[in-house]
Amino acid sequence: MVSVTVWNEFLEEQTNDEVASVYPDGIHEVLAAGLRERGHEVRTATLEEPDHGLTPEVLEETDVLVWWEHRAHEDVDDEVVDRVCQQIYDGMGFVPLHSAHFSKPFKRLMGTPCSLNYRESRERERVWTVDPSHPITAGLNDSFVIPETEMYGEPFAVPEPEQLVFVSWFEGGEVFRSGCCYTRGTGRIFYFRPGHETYPVYHEDVVLDVLDNAVDWAAPRTERSVSTENSSVEPRE
Amino acid sequence: MVSVTVWNEFLEEQTNDEVASVYPDGIHEVLAAGLRERGHEVRTATLEEPDHGLTPEVLEETDVLVWWEHRAHEDVDDEVVDRVCQQIYDGMGFVPLHSAHFSKPFKRLMGTPCSLNYRESRERERVWTVDPSHPITAGLNDSFVIPETEMYGEPFAVPEPEQLVFVSWFEGGEVFRSGCCYTRGTGRIFYFRPGHETYPVYHEDVVLDVLDNAVDWAAPRTERSVSTENSSVEPRE
Amino acid sequence: MVSVTVWNEFLEEQTNDEVASVYPDGIHEVLAAGLRERGHEVRTATLEEPDHGLTPEVLEETDVLVWWEHRAHEDVDDEVVDRVCQQIYDGMGFVPLHSAHFSKPFKRLMGTPCSLNYRESRERERVWTVDPSHPITAGLNDSFVIPETEMYGEPFAVPEPEQLVFVSWFEGGEVFRSGCCYTRGTGRIFYFRPGHETYPVYHEDVVLDVLDNAVDWAAPRTERSVSTENSSVEPRE
Amino acid sequence: MVSVTVWNEFLEEQTNDEVASVYPDGIHEVLAAGLRERGHEVRTATLEEPDHGLTPEVLEETDVLVWWEHRAHEDVDDEVVDRVCQQIYDGMGFVPLHSAHFSKPFKRLMGTPCSLNYRESRERERVWTVDPSHPITAGLNDSFVIPETEMYGEPFAVPEPEQLVFVSWFEGGEVFRSGCCYTRGTGRIFYFRPGHETYPVYHEDVVLDVLDNAVDWAAPRTERSVSTENSSVEPRE
Repeated sequence: MVSVTVWNEFLEEQTNDEVASVYPDGIHEVLAAGLRERGHEVRTATLEEPDHGLTPEVLEETDVLVWWEHRAHEDVDDEVVDRVCQQIYDGMGFVPLHSAHFSKPFKRLMGTPCSLNYRESRERERVWTVDPSHPITAGLNDSFVIPETEMYGEPFAVPEPEQLVFVSWFEGGEVFRSGCCYTRGTGRIFYFRPGHETYPVYHEDVVLDVLDNAVDWAAPRTERSVSTENSSVEPRE
Repeated sequence: MVSVTVWNEFLEEQTNDEVASVYPDGIHEVLAAGLRERGHEVRTATLEEPDHGLTPEVLEETDVLVWWEHRAHEDVDDEVVDRVCQQIYDGMGFVPLHSAHFSKPFKRLMGTPCSLNYRESRERERVWTVDPSHPITAGLNDSFVIPETEMYGEPFAVPEPEQLVFVSWFEGGEVFRSGCCYTRGTGRIFYFRPGHETYPVYHEDVVLDVLDNAVDWAAPRTERSVSTENSSVEPRE
Repeated sequence: MVSVTVWNEFLEEQTNDEVASVYPDGIHEVLAAGLRERGHEVRTATLEEPDHGLTPEVLEETDVLVWWEHRAHEDVDDEVVDRVCQQIYDGMGFVPLHSAHFSKPFKRLMGTPCSLNYRESRERERVWTVDPSHPITAGLNDSFVIPETEMYGEPFAVPEPEQLVFVSWFEGGEVFRSGCCYTRGTGRIFYFRPGHETYPVYHEDVVLDVLDNAVDWAAPRTERSVSTENSSVEPRE
Repeated sequence: MVSVTVWNEFLEEQTNDEVASVYPDGIHEVLAAGLRERGHEVRTATLEEPDHGLTPEVLEETDVLVWWEHRAHEDVDDEVVDRVCQQIYDGMGFVPLHSAHFSKPFKRLMGTPCSLNYRESRERERVWTVDPSHPITAGLNDSFVIPETEMYGEPFAVPEPEQLVFVSWFEGGEVFRSGCCYTRGTGRIFYFRPGHETYPVYHEDVVLDVLDNAVDWAAPRTERSVSTENSSVEPRE
């Protein structure tokens, strides 16, 4: 059992009928329910709460932070971003989803523009496992399908993943590195592409199964923090 | 200018009319001509020659060895395989093409089964650059098309590439890691998927352009050989 | 609890007084006892047993195979090596120790000569964690000391590790990549340098703690096997 | 011949006698002279110049930017940092030296704290090549010595290098990943540890030889820029 916090900007579900019809209580509630069913302890947090719901206390109690964000990138407070990144350096797992490729924490952790190609065209995506040894693929078939989705295409301007777990095929002719693992400090990061606010991607069991595996994988392992300062040390005997 | 040896099992071109119609003088001659046009010094070698044409002298003068093989995997002499691998450890570049994923040298260098899925179905392949920083992609567009080809699909049982340069999309629904870079000893290896004996893939300019870049990239850089034995050494002052 | 098989060539402990005085019942028994104390289920196997003790049944029941070998490299039967490697491709973990860098299975899995420099000089080694996020480092300090050991120095002719966990410092002036992680098929490999037959390295608690972490890390995760053959597949719908 | 810009904060050489005695005209002039002797076209730039000497025009004409910085980290203007990073994403090479591990551009590109241990103790460093295939090691011996230097020790809080080229041994018992390669966008980054303002490290031929190789390696290869924005695209035919 992993202690998970699901964060959501939670904007369009309250203002856009199409989004609200798919995720009436917010994307975070669907993700939280799916992870709870799979045995995790889950809390949620949203943009509008004080500190966006991500106080030092909440982060301290969080093993893995799942992050949905679509358009409010610039509204996320830099101080909260600092806090989230420091917690990741100190071991917290981080699972940014889909359009969170453009979130402040992910961009800061990658050190690159994180840009990509896209097309909102209700097309079929087939997600292929290219690293069948990876724990995030446990229990999955060689590939699975998202029947209708928004396309993301290469080039995806991120550093070469430490492990590339999934590659997506899209009906319209593109491919995308859809499951990318990174380590920053002692924290583990899993970027996962599938998901959309107007398609019911997070109602798919297989997508929630991947997230179940992802939070298991991203949970802290070594209880070790990373200094932000240099340390002067004595010679060894 | 790189000194290239193109090796071909050169069997089906002499026995199969369909193959002979596409590559009447052998696949090696088409590859050699394309690389010569692009400024390299190219010799060829084939299975039927003594030592398969890969004598110690030939290998010593070879900067990069390009390898086509389709079905004669077991007919390649182990002693020649030893010699080729040792030359790679000592800095020679190696560019196995398409079905050479099952060649003895590639399998030995990878240490894995190198198996994959395939379908001979005359379908469209779109090859995407996923590492736009890589020299092998110089001058290319974000993607290029092979109009008719054999499909190769994941899982591809190789070690995680050191750099993943290309990912292919196939009409029938699959993806494949089509351009994979490895280092073994001081030698550089570039596995390149496109190519087939009954489709004119090696008559495509863009494919030859990739190979032109590949031999430039794989050429030796450090003039340093790798011992096969352990060495006893004295303490440093 | 991981099901571990500790393999030992078990030769010098029976013929060399110096070795027998440090490991009277064999290195495998010291390793097995240390891993049992740490909660694992451990069996042992040695060179002199039929199939070197590594029958298909034993391997099938083994999660992680720990391997000590010093001088009998050429006496290990190729059929057993095939079987061990195939089991690794299908998910079994593999932890070769010290001079097992020159064992047939490790060399085959790496695809390189695996040579190194050495000096038998009873000198101090300090093992540094360079990847504090890695589960194999859980509970360790930033560095630990082996008071007297044989030196191994770079260049170590292996592929670039997927994760480099430890780097050793030696009194005499050398460094060595002492903890190297690889994936082959769905199996995880952790090469660990410390250890020697005439120094009591495997009586050190910290070394056994590392091995405890290593077998946890290397245990299979996805219950997925890897084909040695290509598979013909139909187009996806 | 590579077009190099050597940047230096150029502060202590003008205020600290000890530093001035080693680098009377500034560290940048010693680096520039060494690179010019080795055939490169070199200009210099310093903190005190308008735009720190790094105008858009200068950066546009720069293939590789070499960066010395010791204590003025916070005085580097964020707008210049933005410009430098964007130029790197678009292909410019970047070679941060020694204490530039704490520079704004390097920290932003890494996405981690980049902290380390240190000791100013005039001790011996031996730099070992651990990747003898890498072009940056061309012409070097297996190791070279810096007779007197400041120690940097692990843990070094950076992402796992894409290629780890050098590991340093220090007299006092530490090791350090002294040559680390990364790609960000289409730009190549080589962090190189050796160097100090009060020891004549940049007067050592071997250090300048490494930098010669490093600027050759880091020079742009693909003339390809990276978008900071997502792009909407049409389906492929």
